[in-house]
Amino acid sequence: MEHIQSVAADKVYRIFNIGATSVVSAEHEGVADAMAAAWNTCAEVLPCKAVVLIDKTHFTRPLVEKSGYFALQFPTVGVARETMYLGSVSKNDNAKKLEESGAEFFKMPGWEIPLMKGCAAWVICKHIPRPENEKDFDLFVGEVVAAWADERVFKDGHWLFETAPDDMKTLHYVAGGHFYKIGEALDVPGY
Amino acid sequence: MEHIQSVAADKVYRIFNIGATSVVSAEHEGVADAMAAAWNTCAEVLPCKAVVLIDKTHFTRPLVEKSGYFALQFPTVGVARETMYLGSVSKNDNAKKLEESGAEFFKMPGWEIPLMKGCAAWVICKHIPRPENEKDFDLFVGEVVAAWADERVFKDGHWLFETAPDDMKTLHYVAGGHFYKIGEALDVPGY
Repeated sequence: MEHIQSVAADKVYRIFNIGATSVVSAEHEGVADAMAAAWNTCAEVLPCKAVVLIDKTHFTRPLVEKSGYFALQFPTVGVARETMYLGSVSKNDNAKKLEESGAEFFKMPGWEIPLMKGCAAWVICKHIPRPENEKDFDLFVGEVVAAWADERVFKDGHWLFETAPDDMKTLHYVAGGHFYKIGEALDVPGY
Repeated sequence: MEHIQSVAADKVYRIFNIGATSVVSAEHEGVADAMAAAWNTCAEVLPCKAVVLIDKTHFTRPLVEKSGYFALQFPTVGVARETMYLGSVSKNDNAKKLEESGAEFFKMPGWEIPLMKGCAAWVICKHIPRPENEKDFDLFVGEVVAAWADERVFKDGHWLFETAPDDMKTLHYVAGGHFYKIGEALDVPGY
């Protein structure tokens, strides 16, 4: 847990703001899964709500529905290969998906939900059921109930990509194994 | 319209995938507005549906509700300052917001909706009303009915940040006028 620090509730939206590709994880009765999800954003600053698309075919989905919780985490360059695996292979086809992904998982005290090592930040969300959204759009909403970040890349509510090592940059997926890393900072005056 | 090309419907999701900050625009009975929205993603590959958060206080929101359409566009470094203005000033407070933003707008033939110059891509969406989502989460969904991109930065379904000029990179907003540009490419093997 070295380098992992809590994120203040009113700064969690900044984790989502940059639009990084996420990994969604969930666990129910000891069965866990994790899948990559480029389609995520958030709603509201406080309490921050995560919005993520989880297809009906994904093994992760019933784990969210049954446990009532999911985690979103934002993998970095250092685990791009593992992220690609988690987005390509379904646990419906390979029961040992997590073990064979190469990704390593840990748990935070008090939470029975696997979190992926090598991410920039992690949020745990309490599922807010909206059956129509889930049926029509595969769209899940959850209220963020806990959040942590790796202090080397996000600290005191600020992303630190200016100084973070290259392999801690977030991933922004396109298709076919092609990602872009987050890039240089740009500051413009406020109004 | 130099450099603006249609995007194939089955490649539109790739515009959304990288998580860039958007500008939402809409027009109703000759009244137009545009606002920055970092909180956007998409649902489904085909037909691609845009998901965007539009707060109840925003002037743009009733324009979407009344006209039944909205546009999402993805501004580049070249218009970062204008994007910040569009995200900071409300047309509720300044009726000349668009004129004073410094942003320039154009329309595509057949569409009465303002599009912002200097963006990497533009999509027009038909609003799919979901009153509960809009009330509870400020979450709007729209089916993409037209899409274009600047061929210097997105062509034949591929982002071209490897070769595009720096001022055409997409913007990924954090807070307080602080953005990150999209960065370098990274390719990992498929599974």
